Amino acid sequence: MSKFFSQKFKNISPYCAGEQPQDKKYIKLNTNESPFPPSPYAQRLARESAGDMLLYPDPEYSALVNIAAEKFGVKTSEILFTNGSDEALDYAFTAFCDDSAPAVFPDITYGFYPVFARINRVPFKEIPLKDDFTIDINDYLNAGGTVFIANPNAPTGIALKLSEIEKIIANNPKNIVVIDEAYVDFGAESCVQLIQKYNNLIVTQTFSKSRSLAGARLGMAFACEDIINDLKTVKFSRNPYNVSRMTAAAGIGALCDEEYFLGNCEKIVKTRGEFTEKLAKIGFSVLPSKANFVFAKHNVIDGKTMYTELKNRGVLVRFFEKPRINGYVRITIGSDEQMEKAFKVISEIVKGIK
Amino acid sequence: MSKFFSQKFKNISPYCAGEQPQDKKYIKLNTNESPFPPSPYAQRLARESAGDMLLYPDPEYSALVNIAAEKFGVKTSEILFTNGSDEALDYAFTAFCDDSAPAVFPDITYGFYPVFARINRVPFKEIPLKDDFTIDINDYLNAGGTVFIANPNAPTGIALKLSEIEKIIANNPKNIVVIDEAYVDFGAESCVQLIQKYNNLIVTQTFSKSRSLAGARLGMAFACEDIINDLKTVKFSRNPYNVSRMTAAAGIGALCDEEYFLGNCEKIVKTRGEFTEKLAKIGFSVLPSKANFVFAKHNVIDGKTMYTELKNRGVLVRFFEKPRINGYVRITIGSDEQMEKAFKVISEIVKGIK
Repeated sequence: MSKFFSQKFKNISPYCAGEQPQDKKYIKLNTNESPFPPSPYAQRLARESAGDMLLYPDPEYSALVNIAAEKFGVKTSEILFTNGSDEALDYAFTAFCDDSAPAVFPDITYGFYPVFARINRVPFKEIPLKDDFTIDINDYLNAGGTVFIANPNAPTGIALKLSEIEKIIANNPKNIVVIDEAYVDFGAESCVQLIQKYNNLIVTQTFSKSRSLAGARLGMAFACEDIINDLKTVKFSRNPYNVSRMTAAAGIGALCDEEYFLGNCEKIVKTRGEFTEKLAKIGFSVLPSKANFVFAKHNVIDGKTMYTELKNRGVLVRFFEKPRINGYVRITIGSDEQMEKAFKVISEIVKGIK
Repeated sequence: MSKFFSQKFKNISPYCAGEQPQDKKYIKLNTNESPFPPSPYAQRLARESAGDMLLYPDPEYSALVNIAAEKFGVKTSEILFTNGSDEALDYAFTAFCDDSAPAVFPDITYGFYPVFARINRVPFKEIPLKDDFTIDINDYLNAGGTVFIANPNAPTGIALKLSEIEKIIANNPKNIVVIDEAYVDFGAESCVQLIQKYNNLIVTQTFSKSRSLAGARLGMAFACEDIINDLKTVKFSRNPYNVSRMTAAAGIGALCDEEYFLGNCEKIVKTRGEFTEKLAKIGFSVLPSKANFVFAKHNVIDGKTMYTELKNRGVLVRFFEKPRINGYVRITIGSDEQMEKAFKVISEIVKGIK
């Protein structure tokens, strides 16, 4: 840290993302990317827009917003596109959190929430998950702050039901509730439609997981028009042209190619089920996942050892050095071929140490 | 504004960018884009990376940083890539401005600086330009805050000499000096090399103007390693993957294709000279520009009328409703063909009203 860095951030500790090795020598199951390439139509539209890059994008991204409104059945004024859903979450921390509305989220959830709170210099309160790693929704009724819930939650993969989510939203009329649906397409219930019933709801989604566009950086926020306008106030005060032309074009292609998207989600759900069963047979407890990853704990081998042994053998997974979850590893669900190879390696580790 | 929007931002007023009409019916000379397409090599690399979008980018963007380090003659640890240079500027306001280091910049400059100050909730001080719209560098010696100077300045186009810039940097040892070189490639002197002499200097550049990539969203910050690490602390607390894969690929192509880049800059400088002479002959005062635009005032027609009449006739330029400069319009230098058409329309307006 230089001597010029503002003292107000002296205790900041940035988010630590999963490793992104550039040499492709690993089976990469650590950052919940899709194993499938972007939709051919998304790729084509992105390529075709390469020559248009001399001009700034439309800062309202109207063409993309129009398609999204149609696909999700909401109004164009109820959507904002962002540079990944992280940016939408950051904007929500900026716009809706302060001393009178501290951020409120589970103790075990997306690790970026406390970082967003710190960079925005807003207080936050972490509420422990229950022993089985589920959320007790009673903890979030009249929470007295801006609620952030990942549904399904990360890194557990456990989802709340739509009725439970609605109960949280309905019981926080004085505060914003942000539902982070980064992983919703793999079997959980989306609450996007509830934005038309509740004026305190923001739903964020990403193109990084189910739509195979992690490298394009595209996310969305859904909310009533007033809330979207507040988020736009932040966007137009930070980075009006936050999404590149090629990414916006890819986004249109990805939204249009619904069959490809649904087929890929289905494959992941099927592979997740098979992989979970196989893990259970060799001594793992696997939390019930509705995401494109599983959070799994072996009955003998601790999480750090499992992570390290896997990495040594060419399989990257994610380990969190944190109480309560340091027995676990988070394993992204890749293609059948990737998961077969990964399972073979995991089996060898389990056998070798026993 | 919704009832949930934090009161701390109640007086915020977002940046107002130039119009981005989507119908292509205008000669667009209002947002300082390049009239030339992106380098063919940049386009090719961007297109070739479309299929890789399933994976997150390398958050360090090492391949891009390596090329930039070579081209600019600095170390890889002295560069940060951002989602447009606006993002680099925003990070600088976050990291280096506070009550003990208010932002200091000219009263007439890039209109985003006060917006960045407000969204970051830091105080700022605007120092009037001299009557001839030049910067008096004495105003910025020991400025008592974090200095932001666009060089060349916008919307005037007037540049300081490298020796003057260095005097400002050398005389603010206790504070950061940010030199915003968005327009430097059109005839001004870059101070990038000074980052190796001064530990309080940040230089920002953009790919949006001279490199024809406004739609790709790519900017750079240069500084000593400690300062770059501070900026990275902000980046990794907001959006670790801030640049898309296709944009990073396009950036590599644009940096490699130096001949194309230099040729385009040369063309703009030549066209700017010719256009300026022609404007002078029909009653305009034109400030001496080192940028890809001219700031021009007619001796009879006020700025707002000129802007409106031009727009009615299909030519978009920029007008700023602000004391001291409301007599002027800012006209981007496009291709020779665009400028001939624009000049014809301007001549008609001048003749019609006289």
